[in-house]
Amino acid sequence: METEIPTIFSAKRTSFVRTSVIREILKLTVENSDILSFAGGLPNPHLLSKDILGSVMEATIRENIATALQYGDSSGYLPLRKQIIEELTDVPWNSPDSIIITHGSQQGLDILGKMFMDSDTNVLIEDPVYLGALQAFSPYHPQFFSVPMETDGPNLFWLEEILSQNKIHVFYANPSYQNPSTYTWSLEKRKQIASLLDEKEIILIEDEAYRYLDFEGNVYPSVSSLRKRNDLTFVLGSFSKILSPGFRLGWTVVPEVYRSLFTAIKQGNDLNSNQFSQVIVSKLLDEMDFKDHLRSIQRFYSEKKEILVSLMKNFLPEAKFSLPKGGMFLWVEYPKVSEKELMKQCLTSGVAMVPGSEFSPVKRTSSNFRMNFSFLGDVEMEEGVKRIAKVYRDINT
Amino acid sequence: METEIPTIFSAKRTSFVRTSVIREILKLTVENSDILSFAGGLPNPHLLSKDILGSVMEATIRENIATALQYGDSSGYLPLRKQIIEELTDVPWNSPDSIIITHGSQQGLDILGKMFMDSDTNVLIEDPVYLGALQAFSPYHPQFFSVPMETDGPNLFWLEEILSQNKIHVFYANPSYQNPSTYTWSLEKRKQIASLLDEKEIILIEDEAYRYLDFEGNVYPSVSSLRKRNDLTFVLGSFSKILSPGFRLGWTVVPEVYRSLFTAIKQGNDLNSNQFSQVIVSKLLDEMDFKDHLRSIQRFYSEKKEILVSLMKNFLPEAKFSLPKGGMFLWVEYPKVSEKELMKQCLTSGVAMVPGSEFSPVKRTSSNFRMNFSFLGDVEMEEGVKRIAKVYRDINT
Repeated sequence: METEIPTIFSAKRTSFVRTSVIREILKLTVENSDILSFAGGLPNPHLLSKDILGSVMEATIRENIATALQYGDSSGYLPLRKQIIEELTDVPWNSPDSIIITHGSQQGLDILGKMFMDSDTNVLIEDPVYLGALQAFSPYHPQFFSVPMETDGPNLFWLEEILSQNKIHVFYANPSYQNPSTYTWSLEKRKQIASLLDEKEIILIEDEAYRYLDFEGNVYPSVSSLRKRNDLTFVLGSFSKILSPGFRLGWTVVPEVYRSLFTAIKQGNDLNSNQFSQVIVSKLLDEMDFKDHLRSIQRFYSEKKEILVSLMKNFLPEAKFSLPKGGMFLWVEYPKVSEKELMKQCLTSGVAMVPGSEFSPVKRTSSNFRMNFSFLGDVEMEEGVKRIAKVYRDINT
Repeated sequence: METEIPTIFSAKRTSFVRTSVIREILKLTVENSDILSFAGGLPNPHLLSKDILGSVMEATIRENIATALQYGDSSGYLPLRKQIIEELTDVPWNSPDSIIITHGSQQGLDILGKMFMDSDTNVLIEDPVYLGALQAFSPYHPQFFSVPMETDGPNLFWLEEILSQNKIHVFYANPSYQNPSTYTWSLEKRKQIASLLDEKEIILIEDEAYRYLDFEGNVYPSVSSLRKRNDLTFVLGSFSKILSPGFRLGWTVVPEVYRSLFTAIKQGNDLNSNQFSQVIVSKLLDEMDFKDHLRSIQRFYSEKKEILVSLMKNFLPEAKFSLPKGGMFLWVEYPKVSEKELMKQCLTSGVAMVPGSEFSPVKRTSSNFRMNFSFLGDVEMEEGVKRIAKVYRDINT
């Protein structure tokens, strides 16, 4: 006898809503602390100084409480928008008006999906692609096309093929230390693709949530900054990886022609972003030596990456991955096993990773996993890799 | 010669996006401090004790920093969801699982719009209606029907007419101290409408953002709590009016069959609500005498209402309004003037109110304004009313 599934009334678009295995795994690991998790994209919360945070909170209560505890401008808190312009963006046509603060960069994705995507909108994405973008865009049900990725960016042959054979309206890309692959577009490819997008008049949604996570402190120019058509390019940024995801703040750099529409959609979504967090983050940026803070984050991630890389080489030499230039993940191929099987057995053995199929717009045959190295302690990381190695060998013999 | 309007590429739904005059006026009043504003729905930020907030922030840094600065469960922070169940909801089928924390109750409206509203969904709303709901729902372009309101709730004759002549799928209502009218459904009407909705199998989106703002401290049972069909009823709540809008937190009570869909949409929208604010609000609820705090808010609003009422009676006896039982607005009819004209002249004379047409799903002939009394000081309020009176008489003679 089959279980009866209740028929519920809902809008047609809900059949395109995607759930995230990541957040289900996250929930599992919170409930069961014995599971060692390489699954989340969790930054380390101890990288932010408690002392500075404490004094900033105190100052907020003393000096800015009326602003911090009130509704705010739908576009965001002006002092913070100015700081973003000065320190965290590179497009030459920037002004505080071009920055709209969002509830994490994820909200920017939802707003842009709502703004651009009908069922006849052709949207190009990377393969693999950031899962959150699929979640944000899917309910609007656009036609997805995907371009295969190489370690230095999209495969140009395929990109040109797709663009010449289809009218692509929007390209969503994550050019720096991409989630999940950590692939980073080379400067050369950035230039070529910028001019290709200009020529074809394609809207670019450039997700730069990982922009400042280069292990050496390098910062690539955004693809948007290399475009001539500054009316067709959006850049998304985030405080989650460089300060803390707890403040739930990001921003979108919005071309002038789209600003009033973007802000009106934002109003309908949530009126305005969290004012309390905006005031605190703005003060933090004032008080901290931000460049120094970034360097310490970058060093921390770089060291953690080294540790995971050497553990993998020692205990799982069969696994294949390219060395990332930044970010918080290894993108690992496990040969000769089924992805589903490996994931299931790993969870049973108390270790979690995210299966690559989660990030794929198309069916895959290879078995890939995204492994985070920023969250687990070194001892736990070793134990986790050993558990995976044991599961892998048990399946593979 | 006409101005050339740039043609921009965007999704079809964007032609239904509504902007809000309120937020434009708000911006104007922030930029020009000479304008006395009755326009916003701004709670008074000084009602929250700085000392308690300070000690809660300190405790958060000391005890909960790793949680507060991290990503969180898409459904919300569990301790906070438990507190909401215990103190701030009344439906009998409640459990912490039924509460999903949102980015203000406004986000709940957007999620429910996304979840239920296609172009062939019939949505019943009140007239007048909360503007933010129109902003949230309009991009999904449902068919709106509206029911005329009386001071004690919807006109029952018209409600039954509409329900018998049309298949209504969703009813959005704001039964307690409605924004903008402050009309509050009587217990009798709540019971009758609950059973009518059960009989017709209509989904209710019950917006209870103002639930605790009764001047006498009364709390009406939610319409949802009076329904038998607990699979067809959603209740939205908010911390904006009872603690602070700065924390940007609300919640939706979601029936079991819709929970996984609601959470998946929430993930696509923003991954999770602001974790930092959730931890602080949870601690605030622990530390404060919340009932006492509510009483002081209610008393404050009650006193402010008395002041505005007596100023209106003294300086503008022509204006008509019913006495509200709670909330933060007077809903005022100004006879024999054009709404547009009065608004324009008022702004020129340095005083702002929100025109009633903003809250109306249909064309109106009368001239109504929403006047907030919670934000201005008493002296400013008097000066503001005098300015309106002068403008009104100048137009009317």
